[in-house]
Amino acid sequence: MAQQERAVRTRRAVLEAAAAVFAERGYAAATIGEILHRAGVTKGALYFHFGSKVALAQGVLQAQTGNDYHVPRGLKLQEWVDAGMTLAWRLPQEPMLLAGVRLSADLHSRDVVGSAWPAWAEVTTSFLAEAKERGEVLPHVVPAETAQVFLGAWIGVQYVSQAMAGWADLEMRMSALFNHMLPAITAPAVLVRLDTAPDRGARVMAEVRAQSPALAGAGQ
Amino acid sequence: MAQQERAVRTRRAVLEAAAAVFAERGYAAATIGEILHRAGVTKGALYFHFGSKVALAQGVLQAQTGNDYHVPRGLKLQEWVDAGMTLAWRLPQEPMLLAGVRLSADLHSRDVVGSAWPAWAEVTTSFLAEAKERGEVLPHVVPAETAQVFLGAWIGVQYVSQAMAGWADLEMRMSALFNHMLPAITAPAVLVRLDTAPDRGARVMAEVRAQSPALAGAGQ
Repeated sequence: MAQQERAVRTRRAVLEAAAAVFAERGYAAATIGEILHRAGVTKGALYFHFGSKVALAQGVLQAQTGNDYHVPRGLKLQEWVDAGMTLAWRLPQEPMLLAGVRLSADLHSRDVVGSAWPAWAEVTTSFLAEAKERGEVLPHVVPAETAQVFLGAWIGVQYVSQAMAGWADLEMRMSALFNHMLPAITAPAVLVRLDTAPDRGARVMAEVRAQSPALAGAGQ
Repeated sequence: MAQQERAVRTRRAVLEAAAAVFAERGYAAATIGEILHRAGVTKGALYFHFGSKVALAQGVLQAQTGNDYHVPRGLKLQEWVDAGMTLAWRLPQEPMLLAGVRLSADLHSRDVVGSAWPAWAEVTTSFLAEAKERGEVLPHVVPAETAQVFLGAWIGVQYVSQAMAGWADLEMRMSALFNHMLPAITAPAVLVRLDTAPDRGARVMAEVRAQSPALAGAGQ
């Protein structure tokens, strides 16, 4: 194995171990020692990639909004829905995402580390801006404003689903959220063509799996 | 002062002191000692009304959904919007409501004490069911489902507003949330008549103040 490839693998192992520890314990209670132990790497290797606990948490946050599961569609709004529904499908089973939720929701770590919220708002804003250019979104819609409403609503939906159902109803709640927000922003002819069913995320993931088996295996 | 009136005042003083302490410290860190000190009552008086910390927290949760600020309107949906917008106006300045938010969001206290979420969902369900009977709400809408979406979204909007703006933009975010959800559930002829402006809560509170000065003074 080339040295560079080894470095990439080590970095990934450290990041995944950090995500698992942050997801389970939260920022304050997470220790470098436990992350080292889980990653099975030396202290030197960890500090080569991440100089501090803050840097580890920021690495986890930066890993939130990857575009790996993106499947192009005829409608940009469908791509936005797909991004939300695959996230709802993946969240309960991927420590990297669970860690992002927990770090972003923690008042203390948000002060020190920041949160994934601005990046998520940016993702939605960019989907909606493209959809608006194509005429899928109603003319009065301000993408950045809708993105803020959606961000808040999505955080709350996650929260309630975790608290009341241990995530079991997250896809159902996410589907209902889209059904309650899309009519306010979507051109009528587009609205009727959108698929927001609760199993949409699972179906998109099956497509991704067919195209790229390595990716879709993550988190299972 | 009659004995019964004194008892009512003592109970209220204890509940307000408990709310202030729960809002500031959370459930786990709140102590009966501090609540006694703030309420300025004897241990005996406190335990006469609330037998335990659990009972105090439950008293605070039960005080969340009072209907004191209700002003009847021609449209039931406007009454629902008014309930949301006055809540957004009151929340940052009323320890009783802040305590309810903090207790309901706390995983540990929710296990022991319960949360205000079911009561809030019930309030929304009942507004929407009445609005549907009157034809204000579209026929396909299931009030209890919309109430769950709104509950999650509202919790998230609170959360993001507190974290990002110290509550300063709560009314603006609440107004935007209504604007993004009402088109999905509202009959078109009703939708155009609803007032969801960010200052709606302040204006309704001014009306309440004019009708009943004692009530509207709370929390200021």
